[in-house]
Amino acid sequence: MTPDDFASVCPIPLSDYPRVLLAHGGGGRLMQRLIDRMFVETFSGAEPADRHDGAILDLDGGRPAFTTDSYVVKPLFFPGGDIGSLAVNGTVNDLAMCGAKPRYLGVGFILEEGLPMGTLWRIVRSMRQAADAAGVRIVTGDTKVVDQGKGDGVFINTSGVGVVRAGVSVSPRNVRQGDAVILSGDIGRHGIAIMAAREGLEFETEIASDCAPLAEPVARLLDAGVAVRCLRDLTRGGMASAVIEIAEAASVHIRLREDAISVREDVRGACEILGFDPLYVANEGRFVAFVPQDAAERAVEVLRADPVCRDAHQVGSVVAGRSGEVTMTTRLGTSRAVDMLSGEQLPRIC
Amino acid sequence: MTPDDFASVCPIPLSDYPRVLLAHGGGGRLMQRLIDRMFVETFSGAEPADRHDGAILDLDGGRPAFTTDSYVVKPLFFPGGDIGSLAVNGTVNDLAMCGAKPRYLGVGFILEEGLPMGTLWRIVRSMRQAADAAGVRIVTGDTKVVDQGKGDGVFINTSGVGVVRAGVSVSPRNVRQGDAVILSGDIGRHGIAIMAAREGLEFETEIASDCAPLAEPVARLLDAGVAVRCLRDLTRGGMASAVIEIAEAASVHIRLREDAISVREDVRGACEILGFDPLYVANEGRFVAFVPQDAAERAVEVLRADPVCRDAHQVGSVVAGRSGEVTMTTRLGTSRAVDMLSGEQLPRIC
Repeated sequence: MTPDDFASVCPIPLSDYPRVLLAHGGGGRLMQRLIDRMFVETFSGAEPADRHDGAILDLDGGRPAFTTDSYVVKPLFFPGGDIGSLAVNGTVNDLAMCGAKPRYLGVGFILEEGLPMGTLWRIVRSMRQAADAAGVRIVTGDTKVVDQGKGDGVFINTSGVGVVRAGVSVSPRNVRQGDAVILSGDIGRHGIAIMAAREGLEFETEIASDCAPLAEPVARLLDAGVAVRCLRDLTRGGMASAVIEIAEAASVHIRLREDAISVREDVRGACEILGFDPLYVANEGRFVAFVPQDAAERAVEVLRADPVCRDAHQVGSVVAGRSGEVTMTTRLGTSRAVDMLSGEQLPRIC
Repeated sequence: MTPDDFASVCPIPLSDYPRVLLAHGGGGRLMQRLIDRMFVETFSGAEPADRHDGAILDLDGGRPAFTTDSYVVKPLFFPGGDIGSLAVNGTVNDLAMCGAKPRYLGVGFILEEGLPMGTLWRIVRSMRQAADAAGVRIVTGDTKVVDQGKGDGVFINTSGVGVVRAGVSVSPRNVRQGDAVILSGDIGRHGIAIMAAREGLEFETEIASDCAPLAEPVARLLDAGVAVRCLRDLTRGGMASAVIEIAEAASVHIRLREDAISVREDVRGACEILGFDPLYVANEGRFVAFVPQDAAERAVEVLRADPVCRDAHQVGSVVAGRSGEVTMTTRLGTSRAVDMLSGEQLPRIC
């Protein structure tokens, strides 16, 4: 669908309301119609809407996992995704990284007065599609409108609830010496896609975000009986920050192998031009899994059967060494420390 | 504590970081320190922090309720509360209105670059105090920073999970003809307090927000065995919008009695000066309860035993009449329709 297609079927009449008004967040009739027609009908589908302050969930008695994330990505639309799909997949992935099956999402919109209604509709549709693809339902929500110049189009918070099956315990505290570090695919695409879209950069090939739900590959690992110790998706701060955080939380030393870490040629080229290290560039559909070394081969095989993880590899190990630190064996065979950056390479990538 | 006291014990050194930087949301070391020292330590207290993508909850097998709300109130601090206490109580109250006992909160901050760090700290402390008072734990969170001029100091999303005990079903669909409508206290204070703080208005007496957690009075009703049909807190759009929403959702006619609806004299005076109808002014610590008429007296008695609901009264009934509409018997004995406003009287009151 093109942006025009979305606008043409927008359930809020665009001739009357081409843009979001402050009154759309005011608690009156206009807000009620926006919520009922655009959000509730799109998100709940055939389910009857209960118009309540919250939702009652059915978790079949499983242990619930709970997470929240806000999304302020700029621009709102980029190759491979948009703030809507990002907001769904990001929270789905945080639940998956807890070893949970994602089930329910809550959505909080903060809209800037003047946002084109057709833009909002395009985002809402994208969220529904992403939710369907990830197998989650959007069951509760909230809408606020801030005055023009006090927001930036739209910010979205998605909170999520999932279920952890019995016997599954995925946590940095389970990581121990001897574990293998598996990376689920090539890195750096999301950050470069955002940067290119924001700055109007063009590369020889279009670099699309890797934005994708990761619940399915995680379920495959658990279904296969792989003793998953810890999972972490590689978002802000990239792979380096995620692995360092785990080394610190688990008080272990992690050694990575540079030659095993997959970076597409066009992404590597873009990073060189922009002065970025791909190890620190954001991803939205990649994760690392820590598993016992004797399960590593099986884990890689299972992951590669999933379309999102075809390029999974073991990229390192938990080894004897200074606790809380990460080192990398470079392509030249030398060893270097992998440190956390102080700030960021790219603001507002998610 | 005064703002200065908060600043003096801020866990982020104010001499180094007097204001929030974009880098505080960048996924690197600065963000990690902000999260660990300011948020995790304040919110988790003595609990060990697991530094994970989400939290695993213990609901003792009860049915979970789930809700989300964003807070964009302006100004950030006002008589009777601040954006932090509002963000905690608002979400606690949405869970309580589902008949749930609020248990866990997730917090998403969207900070504007340049926000004074001491201001953030004051808000974070207020959230912890409000969470303690409401008996909930803040267990997961997220921090984003947007460039100066693209936000407005701080926006907060709080999502929440609570537990609904067996046998409790609180929903507009349970409301039926003959039910009593009980109002938990006087109305209009929050909206007037915000308006006065925003516009620098001074009245003879200071009007403080009614911002308060409502889980305890709801628990008292349920514990007393009152057959609560439906609950609704009176936030944006005020009492009128809440009651109309229920009339529409339940397809019933509701008749209110103006002389039974409590409005403080100073609030009524301020409304007259400002041209507001108190029935539409926002509250953050008031709700309506629909109960069978034969349980109404008991419900009022139980509510009045709670400090937040000392002024509870029956204010109306579900009667025969046009479905989905609300009428009010005025002080003069006449009858008037109560309609929903199109937009709002006051933007950004929560």
